[in-house]
Amino acid sequence: MRAVLFDMDGVLYEGDRAVCGAAEAVSWFQRRHVPHLFVTNTTSKPREALVGKLARMGIDTQAERIFTPPVAAVRWLAETAPGPVALFVPEATKVEFAELTELDSEAKSGAAAVVLGDLGRQWSFETLNRAFCLLMCEPSPVLLALGMTRYWRTPDGLQLDVAPFVSALECATGAKAQVLGKPATAFFEAALQLLDADPAETLLIGDDIVGDVQGAQRANLAGILVRTGKFRASDLAGSIRPDGVLDSIAELRPWWEAHSHG
Amino acid sequence: MRAVLFDMDGVLYEGDRAVCGAAEAVSWFQRRHVPHLFVTNTTSKPREALVGKLARMGIDTQAERIFTPPVAAVRWLAETAPGPVALFVPEATKVEFAELTELDSEAKSGAAAVVLGDLGRQWSFETLNRAFCLLMCEPSPVLLALGMTRYWRTPDGLQLDVAPFVSALECATGAKAQVLGKPATAFFEAALQLLDADPAETLLIGDDIVGDVQGAQRANLAGILVRTGKFRASDLAGSIRPDGVLDSIAELRPWWEAHSHG
Repeated sequence: MRAVLFDMDGVLYEGDRAVCGAAEAVSWFQRRHVPHLFVTNTTSKPREALVGKLARMGIDTQAERIFTPPVAAVRWLAETAPGPVALFVPEATKVEFAELTELDSEAKSGAAAVVLGDLGRQWSFETLNRAFCLLMCEPSPVLLALGMTRYWRTPDGLQLDVAPFVSALECATGAKAQVLGKPATAFFEAALQLLDADPAETLLIGDDIVGDVQGAQRANLAGILVRTGKFRASDLAGSIRPDGVLDSIAELRPWWEAHSHG
Repeated sequence: MRAVLFDMDGVLYEGDRAVCGAAEAVSWFQRRHVPHLFVTNTTSKPREALVGKLARMGIDTQAERIFTPPVAAVRWLAETAPGPVALFVPEATKVEFAELTELDSEAKSGAAAVVLGDLGRQWSFETLNRAFCLLMCEPSPVLLALGMTRYWRTPDGLQLDVAPFVSALECATGAKAQVLGKPATAFFEAALQLLDADPAETLLIGDDIVGDVQGAQRANLAGILVRTGKFRASDLAGSIRPDGVLDSIAELRPWWEAHSHG
C-alpha cells in the first residue's frame, strides 16, 4: 500500500465529535508523506469550511487535499464537456466551480453541461423545468450528478437529496446522468489521477459498506470498513467483503504496516 | 367487434377544432347502442368540463362515459388500497376523488395511497418531500400515478408532466408506481370491466402509436390508428402494426362494418 483515501464523516468524526485517535492516525500518514486525499460526497459546504472543521479536530490540511464531487466535476467537465455550465447547486458550492464559465441564469439554451447537486428547499418547479428545457436543447448538454444520495435524515424528518431530481430529469429527457461522487467508479478514478496513484496500491477507509467499501473495490482499490459512523453489524452479513474491518481509524496504522512492504 | 374506446384529443378534436366527421361517426355508434367510452389521460380537467367541450363539437354524452385516470384510480383504490388517500393532483381534479376519504393535508402519516397527477407549477420541494415522507411510513402506502406522460408542449415551451415526479419518488423510496392511464394495461382492463366487454371484441381508436395503439394491443384490444392529431408518417415505420390505419375517425364506420358480423 502506498496511498490512502480518507472518508470523512463517520471515519474522522461523527457529527461534530472527533473519532478518538483520528487526528493521531492522520498525522502519522502525513509525517511519512503518504500520498492521501480526504474524500467526501458533501456538496453543501465548500472545501474551506471542511478544512476548518478538520482543524478544530486537530487535523491540519489544505483545501487541495479535499476531494469532493464538485472538484471531480470541474476536472471532468474541463476535459469532456468544455463550455458554459448550468449550475443547480447551493450558492455556497458555486465557489468550487469558479474556474468554469457559468451559463447566464436567464439563458434558455447553450449549456454544455447541466450540473445537479443537493439544492434542497431551493428546488422549485420552475428550477427543475429550467434544467429540463436546457437538457432538451440541441446539441444535448451532459447531465452531471454530484453524487446519487437518495435522501438524508434531518431533525425535522427525511429530506430528498440529489438522486430523485436526477431520476426525474433522466425520465423526462431519456438521458443518462454521469455521476461523480461515491460510489461511482469515475469518482474514485479521478481521485487516483490527482494522486498519480495506482488503484492496487491505494486503500479507502470508510464507514459505508456500499458507498465506500464496495465503490472502492469496484474501482480496484482496497476497501477498509470502520465500526464507527453509520456502521452496523448487519453490514458484514451481506455479500460485500471488506479488505479489512477495523474498530476505528485508530487501528489503521498497524493494518497499513502489515500490508506495506519496503 | 362489439365495443369501442374513443381516444379524445387528436381523434375527436385537435386543440379546440373538431375533426371533420367526428360528431357524425360517434353519433352512428350511439344510435346503434354500441357499448363505448371516451378514454383520455387528461387529469387537469374534471369530466364535466370534457362533456362541455364535446357538446360544443356536436357530441352528446355524459360524464359516466368519460374514462380518465382518476376514474380508474378511484375504482382501483376502493378495491385494492382502501383507506385515506393523499392527493397530489390539481384542485380541479379533486372532485373526481369525492367518493374516497382524503388524508388531511397536514398529516405526516396514515395514507393508504399517494396519488400523483400533473401538478405542474404547484409542485414545490415541500410538496414532493411530503409525498416522499408519506411513502416512507409503515405500512407503505401504494404509489399511484395518473398516467406516465413525461412532458408536454406549452406556448411558453416544454413543461414537465407527471412521470418525472413519479420517477423521483420511485428513486427515493425504492417503490414501483402503479400506473393508471394509457398505455398501462391495467387502465384498459379497468375500462373493459366498466363496459363488461371482452378485449377481443373491443377496439380503441387513437392518434398515438405507442400510448394508444400499442397500449391497446398489449391489453389484447384491436388498436386503430388515425392520421390526425399527433400522427406522423414515421409512426408506421417502426415495429408497431396497427389493426387498422384510417385517415380520420370519419372512416371508422366502414372499418367497423367490415369487421363486425351479426
